[in-house]
Amino acid sequence: MDIKNLENIDITLSTASKINEVDFDNLSFGNTFTDHMLVCDFENGVWKKPSIEPYAPFMIDPSAKVFHYGQAIFEGMKAYKDNQDDVWLFRPEQNFERFNKSASRMAMPEVPEDVFMGGLKRLLEIEKNWVKKGDGNSLYIRPFMIATGKGVVAAPAVFYRFMIILSPAKSYYSGEVKVLIAEHFSRAANGGIGAAKAAGNYSAQFYPTKLANEQGFQQIIWTDDATHTKLEEAGTMNVFFRINDTLHTAPTSERILDGITRKSIIDLAKRENINVDIRPVLVEELVEAAKNGSLKEIFGAGTAAVINPIVGFSYKEEYFELPKNEDSFAIDLKKKLTDIQYKNAEDTFGWTVKI
Amino acid sequence: MDIKNLENIDITLSTASKINEVDFDNLSFGNTFTDHMLVCDFENGVWKKPSIEPYAPFMIDPSAKVFHYGQAIFEGMKAYKDNQDDVWLFRPEQNFERFNKSASRMAMPEVPEDVFMGGLKRLLEIEKNWVKKGDGNSLYIRPFMIATGKGVVAAPAVFYRFMIILSPAKSYYSGEVKVLIAEHFSRAANGGIGAAKAAGNYSAQFYPTKLANEQGFQQIIWTDDATHTKLEEAGTMNVFFRINDTLHTAPTSERILDGITRKSIIDLAKRENINVDIRPVLVEELVEAAKNGSLKEIFGAGTAAVINPIVGFSYKEEYFELPKNEDSFAIDLKKKLTDIQYKNAEDTFGWTVKI
Repeated sequence: MDIKNLENIDITLSTASKINEVDFDNLSFGNTFTDHMLVCDFENGVWKKPSIEPYAPFMIDPSAKVFHYGQAIFEGMKAYKDNQDDVWLFRPEQNFERFNKSASRMAMPEVPEDVFMGGLKRLLEIEKNWVKKGDGNSLYIRPFMIATGKGVVAAPAVFYRFMIILSPAKSYYSGEVKVLIAEHFSRAANGGIGAAKAAGNYSAQFYPTKLANEQGFQQIIWTDDATHTKLEEAGTMNVFFRINDTLHTAPTSERILDGITRKSIIDLAKRENINVDIRPVLVEELVEAAKNGSLKEIFGAGTAAVINPIVGFSYKEEYFELPKNEDSFAIDLKKKLTDIQYKNAEDTFGWTVKI
Repeated sequence: MDIKNLENIDITLSTASKINEVDFDNLSFGNTFTDHMLVCDFENGVWKKPSIEPYAPFMIDPSAKVFHYGQAIFEGMKAYKDNQDDVWLFRPEQNFERFNKSASRMAMPEVPEDVFMGGLKRLLEIEKNWVKKGDGNSLYIRPFMIATGKGVVAAPAVFYRFMIILSPAKSYYSGEVKVLIAEHFSRAANGGIGAAKAAGNYSAQFYPTKLANEQGFQQIIWTDDATHTKLEEAGTMNVFFRINDTLHTAPTSERILDGITRKSIIDLAKRENINVDIRPVLVEELVEAAKNGSLKEIFGAGTAAVINPIVGFSYKEEYFELPKNEDSFAIDLKKKLTDIQYKNAEDTFGWTVKI
């Protein structure tokens, strides 16, 4: 795809860059931000002229609807730098489309392509020194929209703000990940907002995840809320199960996020002639496969970690450790995917987009 | 109950009151705010000294977790002025307790009683002129807490802000309310956050409600998300069904808010010797009762409207108009409840608390 240029924008550059104060070898994920941010306000039915300005706190009314009714959505993307110092995005049109689907579900206005994609391009051109070369380095991109309209009455706002902020990131390694299969708590309802990247979906998981952490599990694999028998997703990642040599993952639904890493892995696996089975996977199948030795791998897939191998899971107080595989699908697919993202391998899918 | 005094507070009064600019006869709900607000920050595990300061926008970082992960909760309360110019609250300890239950579910810190209740008392003492006498007049109180901690990583924040803002209100009349019974969309999941007054629960309803509005219905009565057969709540109100002379309402659960108006109506109805049946009411029962004429009334119950009569409902494209009753439970119970709130009747329950 081509990213259209956005000419109609106000740009105010910061007087001094923070870049020399940043230790790029010791970045904790999501806590360091670049010098500039994109801001675009929606007022009375119209998107105003966007601006790029120094990253800074901003003023907001205490009655802003984002604080009271949670009208807030976001996306997670990454920019990569290749060996020729070119900066690349990975399937950005997918994030743009999903962002506007989330907007519709949350009764928020859709963001025009020139603001989202064109604004991002302008911002990345200014911040290109923040994208570092080398394996695992990237610039994490956080487009988001919040309801800035005032009033403590439960109805959609009239005023919104779209912003893009950028955070340099190292390869995401969260240590050995053990997961708990959800038996009581849930992430999403049938007919709810689970498929949207809505802010409220994430805080809803914090308390159950805290309880899981206290038991020694880093994440939860969520199950359907009605029966808790079907494996769904891991909150910030979709999840894959390798039983023998088949890769299983749940179909997307109104409860499950249509993950871009997820769909890329499915395409990559198919290209590698791995059998991929997209259907609801039952908890009892997983337990059975763990017991009879056919369960080889579980891994999460998402933008932050790309692929996150899981070493074991617990269900009904029983813990199942996964075997160590010489021919790990997770490691192989992660390498193939990141090779495309970093332009170390040919992008036969046409997924990468140059800034 | 006694509200403890809060002495340890910084107070900065506004230099000029906006009160003379306000047309108290023409207030739209939730859009006018008083001169001052209460602010209390939570930093690194400690609640700092609260302050009362002029109502104004405040600065917040673009990466504040409330914007990205929706850690935000609130309460809705009202203050009333009696004929002796005394200001009263209605069961405020219930709001305080529920606020902290919501906080726990959203992995947020609990707010101490002296900050919530003592701070509210100080604020109301300063703003007492904003509480107007007379039937239907009240001062709507909005305590809320947001995650101000920075970082685009999905985990609970370390910094929070608790605030109270106040909005003068007239009697809430929303016109004739027709409701749609939910057949596909849902408000809450089993094991989810439906029982918490979490911001994300409200924006999740905006899009389905917009669709209902377009069909001529003002609100949705939500059903259980797994089967859509059980009647639950109306989003910003609990809901009551009068079949013959029995009042039915769903039991509270992890999907249904434990409404303070709801529980007060149950107690009042019992005192009036009305038969109250608290159990899951099925959609098919409601349709059957509407068809055979035993369905006399449906009404919503919540802080804003107190009791909101519903004139008809639609289910599977069939519309059922409710009869007009001479002996309406809704009108009678609303009068009895507001008489207690405005101190026009003896408060035999001990629900009212003087500021």
